[in-house]
Amino acid sequence: MGAEVTVASQRVYEGRLINLRVDTVRLENGRLTEREIVEHPGAVAVVALDEGDNVLLVRQFRQAAEKDLLEIPAGTLEAGEEPIACARRELKEETGYRAESLEQIGSFYPSPGFCTECIRLYLAIGLHKGPSVPEDDETIETIKVPLSDIPTMVSRGEICDGKSIAGLLSVLLLRHSLDFSAHCS
Amino acid sequence: MGAEVTVASQRVYEGRLINLRVDTVRLENGRLTEREIVEHPGAVAVVALDEGDNVLLVRQFRQAAEKDLLEIPAGTLEAGEEPIACARRELKEETGYRAESLEQIGSFYPSPGFCTECIRLYLAIGLHKGPSVPEDDETIETIKVPLSDIPTMVSRGEICDGKSIAGLLSVLLLRHSLDFSAHCS
Repeated sequence: MGAEVTVASQRVYEGRLINLRVDTVRLENGRLTEREIVEHPGAVAVVALDEGDNVLLVRQFRQAAEKDLLEIPAGTLEAGEEPIACARRELKEETGYRAESLEQIGSFYPSPGFCTECIRLYLAIGLHKGPSVPEDDETIETIKVPLSDIPTMVSRGEICDGKSIAGLLSVLLLRHSLDFSAHCS
Repeated sequence: MGAEVTVASQRVYEGRLINLRVDTVRLENGRLTEREIVEHPGAVAVVALDEGDNVLLVRQFRQAAEKDLLEIPAGTLEAGEEPIACARRELKEETGYRAESLEQIGSFYPSPGFCTECIRLYLAIGLHKGPSVPEDDETIETIKVPLSDIPTMVSRGEICDGKSIAGLLSVLLLRHSLDFSAHCS
């Protein structure tokens, strides 16, 4: 596919978390069209597993969804912050846990049709509990659920956050593949 | 978690695909804060499997990601459109295929931290090929890949669209679970 050529760009909003711009682009067929682009600094999300193979989930009210959602710990990159430092910070702030090992296992665009956000996905193991220190505007409850319960929770709609589904199923599928080759071949 | 109470809301942008509003909300602790909310009409995404267990993927340039992405067929609900009609329309427009069976298998919020978008996920089987009819501003290439290749493609970053990872791994995990109980119990 050929890239679209940006011929004009107008910033229409500058906010606290996001900016919004409208790009005029020339398509491959020569026509012009507009693309509304939400500019986002990027984020991290963390699949954190304890020794009993339980995963940490956080429950918080989401104004955009108008309800509480159950998600993996996650948060937005601060200016100049390294993604792994952000993952360590968000895990600590939201759940109180620190991890002996924090490894990036993937990255993805949650909404590439209109938003620049890229989420780096981390796997955290070797968890140690301390006090949680949520940000001033966050009210967060942490729960632990067996990783093996995740498929049922997703299929029942109890987990309906896209990054959490993508992150948790990535880890599960890796496990399944390993189990599968170990047990079935 | 208690809901946040919206005490003021200002629409700062009305666009073609999205609107943007800034809500002032009262938190549980009584403090006021602002939430930037991208209003989105909602969307559908389709995991389409042929008789050989190949999945249809579409490749298109994404201005927000500044590159081509490989995704499952998907698109935004038109005004008053039923989600299943949207799934049928987008599958046809983007790939040319129609499906004998189109079943909703889940739904999720791709970016609930700031966007109202909810994506309904469909499984399409019984595929029949016709001409694709992409929208005027879309340039789309359709490819077929074995469903069994998806985990490798995700882990290599060849698929890095969140809805596609969530949708494809949901279908794969369901398969794995079935295979697992069939072959290993």
